[in-house]
Amino acid sequence: MATLKLPAHVPAPSGDAEQLRKAFEGWGTNESLIIDILAHRNSAQRNKIRQTYAEAYGDDLLKSLNEELSSDFERSVLLWTLDPAERDAYLANESTKRLTSSNWVIMEIACTRSSLDLFKARQAYHARHKKSIEEDVAHHTTGDYRKLLVPLVSAFRYDGDEVNQTLAKSEAKILHEKISEKAYNDEEIIRILSTRSKAQINATLNHYNNAFGNAINKDLKADPNDEFLKFLRSTIKCLTTPEKHFEKVLRLAINKLGTDEWALTRVVTTRAEVDMERIKEEYHRRNSVPLDRAIAGDTSGDYQKMLLHLIGHGDV
Amino acid sequence: MATLKLPAHVPAPSGDAEQLRKAFEGWGTNESLIIDILAHRNSAQRNKIRQTYAEAYGDDLLKSLNEELSSDFERSVLLWTLDPAERDAYLANESTKRLTSSNWVIMEIACTRSSLDLFKARQAYHARHKKSIEEDVAHHTTGDYRKLLVPLVSAFRYDGDEVNQTLAKSEAKILHEKISEKAYNDEEIIRILSTRSKAQINATLNHYNNAFGNAINKDLKADPNDEFLKFLRSTIKCLTTPEKHFEKVLRLAINKLGTDEWALTRVVTTRAEVDMERIKEEYHRRNSVPLDRAIAGDTSGDYQKMLLHLIGHGDV
Repeated sequence: MATLKLPAHVPAPSGDAEQLRKAFEGWGTNESLIIDILAHRNSAQRNKIRQTYAEAYGDDLLKSLNEELSSDFERSVLLWTLDPAERDAYLANESTKRLTSSNWVIMEIACTRSSLDLFKARQAYHARHKKSIEEDVAHHTTGDYRKLLVPLVSAFRYDGDEVNQTLAKSEAKILHEKISEKAYNDEEIIRILSTRSKAQINATLNHYNNAFGNAINKDLKADPNDEFLKFLRSTIKCLTTPEKHFEKVLRLAINKLGTDEWALTRVVTTRAEVDMERIKEEYHRRNSVPLDRAIAGDTSGDYQKMLLHLIGHGDV
Repeated sequence: MATLKLPAHVPAPSGDAEQLRKAFEGWGTNESLIIDILAHRNSAQRNKIRQTYAEAYGDDLLKSLNEELSSDFERSVLLWTLDPAERDAYLANESTKRLTSSNWVIMEIACTRSSLDLFKARQAYHARHKKSIEEDVAHHTTGDYRKLLVPLVSAFRYDGDEVNQTLAKSEAKILHEKISEKAYNDEEIIRILSTRSKAQINATLNHYNNAFGNAINKDLKADPNDEFLKFLRSTIKCLTTPEKHFEKVLRLAINKLGTDEWALTRVVTTRAEVDMERIKEEYHRRNSVPLDRAIAGDTSGDYQKMLLHLIGHGDV
């Protein structure tokens, strides 16, 4: 469930665009007004505001925000304001750049979005970067990561609930054999994780647990320092229990010496409209502290306010 | 250019549906009437006829055709009547079945359709088979074919005309190195062929030819009996000169001792609305016989009539 809170009466996009324009004018920027508007509009409403803003002032709202805001607050507002597909395209592209490259972010996008949302991100990537996600990912990765990531971002998984139990049993067996042989990069493991529907993978992993006595991620902890094994475990988490993956990303971002704002902003802006309520629950359960208190303790100013509004604070 | 001929005044879908219903009634089926209607309607029009037919008679037009027709004529009418995305899903699924499996057909669909049309076929596959194309392909293939086919069917290539010449040069060099080492299944070859846009691949292969003195497909003939090499050459042909690929499929189908109707029907029904005019030119040039004469010499009856109408014969 989303944490985004919408006002009972949403103003017309032209009114919102006008208010935003006012927030940019004069001596200082009115950051509170920007948050009060943008952090309480859903993606369709934000798209309309951008469109109306461009028509009324001949400027791209994102460009204006970029000029008026700075630092972590800027990044949070920009990422949030983007359409989800454009945002994923942006994050994926950023993650293929040399200095910001992150196989983790690409995997997260590939595995936690619905099949259609992932496809829309691929379309937005074409439009923005004149290339495909998979060609940039393939070009910027090597070895086992490439073997796993390229099919993950290229997948268009079936997303119905139907499950083939016979197949689940036979593929649980294949996974167990390969893991027993420590063949973690085996093409059968990659095939199963990158092509089967999430419901089917879930059934397969249940059979795995029943038949072999351990959850698969326990068996994948054989060598706790192996980076690819960690990556494989996270992939499985993203596919089957995304809220646990996001809880962990938030936990590590907040507990770090020096908060990891890059990750914090990404998780809050990409999940506020999707399943942030569920992630908050998971976070509270796992850390014995509510997420809002943890974020409030680790951030400040407009950036803090923006994040807290997105996870359900603020009157609307 | 398409060979499909539409009448100057296309009847209303309800009129067409009524005529088709009449063609099925009474002692015998009126095959000529079926051809005169269906072989001269484009896919949007055929879809409307199916819809109107279902509403008027409570029957699926495809089911009625299936009951009334038989053999090669039946297959040609059914394949043609399907929406292109449904047809590709049908052909791809057929090609993953044990008795009809064909890596060639899957490769052809993956490489000769536009990015969006391939995606629509993947959506139609979900709807019809409750699975993804890539999971069936991955499940039914092994080794080098799997390594190449899964990324080919999963691709959503950028389809703009922009070309990066620096990249084209560096990737031409990579291809040449791998081919010189006879590493035909190398992951770099597969990466380039399965992720780059068709315009980019074309530029890369031009550089290859300029820099190394041979067209790549000549260098890929090192061992003329190697099946995977043949497959790789056809993949390159489908990506860069699809009309040459289809010409060859037609040539082999027609010249075979005992025509290969399965292939002949596939090429005619999938290309009549796309580029059959270009394929006919290529066929005539390469065989010194026009395609219609070749088809007329090798087929007969309603099947022959259906094919000839689709490649441009018949008054409308």
